Amino acid sequence: MINMVSIIEKKKNGLELSEEEIRGFVKGVTDGSIPDYQTSALLMAICLQGMNKQETFTLTDAMLHSGQTMDLTAIKGIKVDKHSTGGVGDKTSLIVAPIAASCGVPISKMSGRGLGFTGGTVDKMESIPGFRIQLSPEEFLHAVETSGMSIVGQTQDVAPADKKLYALRDVTATVNNISLISSSIMSKKLASGSDAIVLDVKCGHGSFNKTQEAADELGKYMVEIGTNAGKKVVAVITDMNQPLGDAVGNSVEVIEAINTLKCQGPADMTELALTLAGYMIYCGQKASTPEEGRAMAEDALKSGRALETLKKFIKAQGGDPTCVDDYSMFKQPKFTAELKAAEDGFITEIIADTIGLASQHLGAGRKTKEDAIDLSAGIILKKKVGAPVKAGDVIAVLYSDDEDKLAAGLKEAASAYSYGCEAPEIPALVKNVIQ
Amino acid sequence: MINMVSIIEKKKNGLELSEEEIRGFVKGVTDGSIPDYQTSALLMAICLQGMNKQETFTLTDAMLHSGQTMDLTAIKGIKVDKHSTGGVGDKTSLIVAPIAASCGVPISKMSGRGLGFTGGTVDKMESIPGFRIQLSPEEFLHAVETSGMSIVGQTQDVAPADKKLYALRDVTATVNNISLISSSIMSKKLASGSDAIVLDVKCGHGSFNKTQEAADELGKYMVEIGTNAGKKVVAVITDMNQPLGDAVGNSVEVIEAINTLKCQGPADMTELALTLAGYMIYCGQKASTPEEGRAMAEDALKSGRALETLKKFIKAQGGDPTCVDDYSMFKQPKFTAELKAAEDGFITEIIADTIGLASQHLGAGRKTKEDAIDLSAGIILKKKVGAPVKAGDVIAVLYSDDEDKLAAGLKEAASAYSYGCEAPEIPALVKNVIQ
Repeated sequence: MINMVSIIEKKKNGLELSEEEIRGFVKGVTDGSIPDYQTSALLMAICLQGMNKQETFTLTDAMLHSGQTMDLTAIKGIKVDKHSTGGVGDKTSLIVAPIAASCGVPISKMSGRGLGFTGGTVDKMESIPGFRIQLSPEEFLHAVETSGMSIVGQTQDVAPADKKLYALRDVTATVNNISLISSSIMSKKLASGSDAIVLDVKCGHGSFNKTQEAADELGKYMVEIGTNAGKKVVAVITDMNQPLGDAVGNSVEVIEAINTLKCQGPADMTELALTLAGYMIYCGQKASTPEEGRAMAEDALKSGRALETLKKFIKAQGGDPTCVDDYSMFKQPKFTAELKAAEDGFITEIIADTIGLASQHLGAGRKTKEDAIDLSAGIILKKKVGAPVKAGDVIAVLYSDDEDKLAAGLKEAASAYSYGCEAPEIPALVKNVIQ
Repeated sequence: MINMVSIIEKKKNGLELSEEEIRGFVKGVTDGSIPDYQTSALLMAICLQGMNKQETFTLTDAMLHSGQTMDLTAIKGIKVDKHSTGGVGDKTSLIVAPIAASCGVPISKMSGRGLGFTGGTVDKMESIPGFRIQLSPEEFLHAVETSGMSIVGQTQDVAPADKKLYALRDVTATVNNISLISSSIMSKKLASGSDAIVLDVKCGHGSFNKTQEAADELGKYMVEIGTNAGKKVVAVITDMNQPLGDAVGNSVEVIEAINTLKCQGPADMTELALTLAGYMIYCGQKASTPEEGRAMAEDALKSGRALETLKKFIKAQGGDPTCVDDYSMFKQPKFTAELKAAEDGFITEIIADTIGLASQHLGAGRKTKEDAIDLSAGIILKKKVGAPVKAGDVIAVLYSDDEDKLAAGLKEAASAYSYGCEAPEIPALVKNVIQ
């Protein structure tokens, strides 16, 4: 039995916790024997005194073993997972998974629901008619065998210690520590059983990493944790100042993902998807370099193979693949409004998290875990940063099932934009790659 | 309504909390609306980032107003309180209160029970046959009118916020912060309604202030808090490396206090009592200097006036004052054991907290709040630091109602002693005075 007071005292004094202490702490959090008030005191001490690499490795390992771990040995080949630290308009998984799978890389992915201004892949997929995100182990394996990929909702049993700690961190101002963030992400990813992981680490307004420096550091930390656990991990640092692509919401994002697989997606979305898919194909050892992986990804798009994989994947998980060719099968919104440019000039900024918040106001996101979401609600950006506009030009279209929500979303969205007389510099989308 | 997460975040980032934030926090702790896990996260952030003077003043004021405050205006004169940060063998209040009261300084004091190796004045007084520590407001005023003094148990209603915070600090390794310690002590003292306070700040093994530097800093902080609240406060920094006086326990300490009032007390006990009483008389404006106060205190002892005051005080609170002349009226222990010197030479050290722990093993102290205590249990030190001894000399006598406890106490007490060939330097008892 660990002595929690002495563990807190030790970390308060800036000392390194032993493996036994960290494992005892995680065990106590998991079984509920450590009261929340002791856990939160330790979390605050960790935020202010830090944890070293070894402590972070141990914390990650203890959390990943706090619950069920996936055994993917029945799936042949090098399984590759992909994770994004979360952003606005981030439908990348729905594009890169079919691309990589169509190139022979088995994809087995668990995704979460969205909370706050960041959407969740699971919510987005549920806008596909009939699609099921909870599969039995047999159904899951069948999906990977028939389509090369499966994306399912994360079960309660994966890294339960992380779930408890995360809930507590959220209400005790102890979220923002690199060891806590990286161990939280990596414990879940490592428990998911893939052999390699491509991380999309966002930076900018729409991410908790406000600077590239913070994103680089987090990416480096996660690559080290993964490497320590014997996995191949690549972190791609990407821009999240303005929303990714044009669509923000659920149905609208799925439709944009399908369009991208049809080679009709927004340029930034297509660029990011090809880069990430290239690294996934490379990590899955189907290409000898990331560049070769990217070329294969391009071919998968152009040949229509990736789109075919998406259809098989939708079918394997109970969805109706004809929606890929008939968008009217998605739930349609009741109300539509246009957002118009306030000034002549150039759009110099579209603050991603404000657009995320506007989308939440429209009904596309949750304010609390219990909220239901409106799958048809969302935003289509018609102009992005750098676009020349005249006052009154339609710069975005908003959708909602509720007129009051539409008005609230419109007001919020308008506040995301800045205008200027000169064309702004467009920030690079892919800022760094760490491996 | 305060936003607790943003308050925690602010302090985590080392920023100053506003008056509104601190008062909102204390209110939420008092009414239970803030969950313990948020409180403990903030306490840890305070421990690591500190609070400035203004924040500490506000915290103290908010805690003192979190419950009942005593109104002593019905008592004429300048009321003086005395507080010790706690030590082993510290029966000083039972000596200085009658001295100061017999010199015309009205004493109205609330005391706590002991926990751990530190005894509580309230427990000690309960060893006096018939003595009551809970008085009605009328009885309390009557005691001060007839004897010039009253010492009662602290009620649940005084500074309830401090009680809740203290309980949480104890189990989250957040005790040791100067702002939290000083505001905890001063909120209770200020709520007790006296006009002046003499603080006995201990330093050494038997105190949480291990160094004089720490004790000086704490004393200075508390004097500033009191001054800010419009009170006269003096902090006397005193040694707590070895136990104070010769007696450690409950009955044995009361008997030593009576002996001291009869001018038959141990030299160190008498010296400290005269110093503190001198400052109390000075603060009560019955002497124009502390030195004059001390001379008055000496006279109060020699003349027997202080002893007479003690008898009146005991009677006013329901006790039988004849016990002052007949120690057989105190509960007698069933078992006695002698502790013998392990070596020839000089006693170079008697670790105060080890003796406190031995006394606790004997039954004189509590391990948990619910423990009953054996009022007859305790230790009489026959030799103190600097005394020459021969192996086998009796250096202490131990008392208990239980033979097993006696054995445990004997073993613990033996480990408190160190011996050497040379006479050690005796540390000064009074190290500093801050006013």
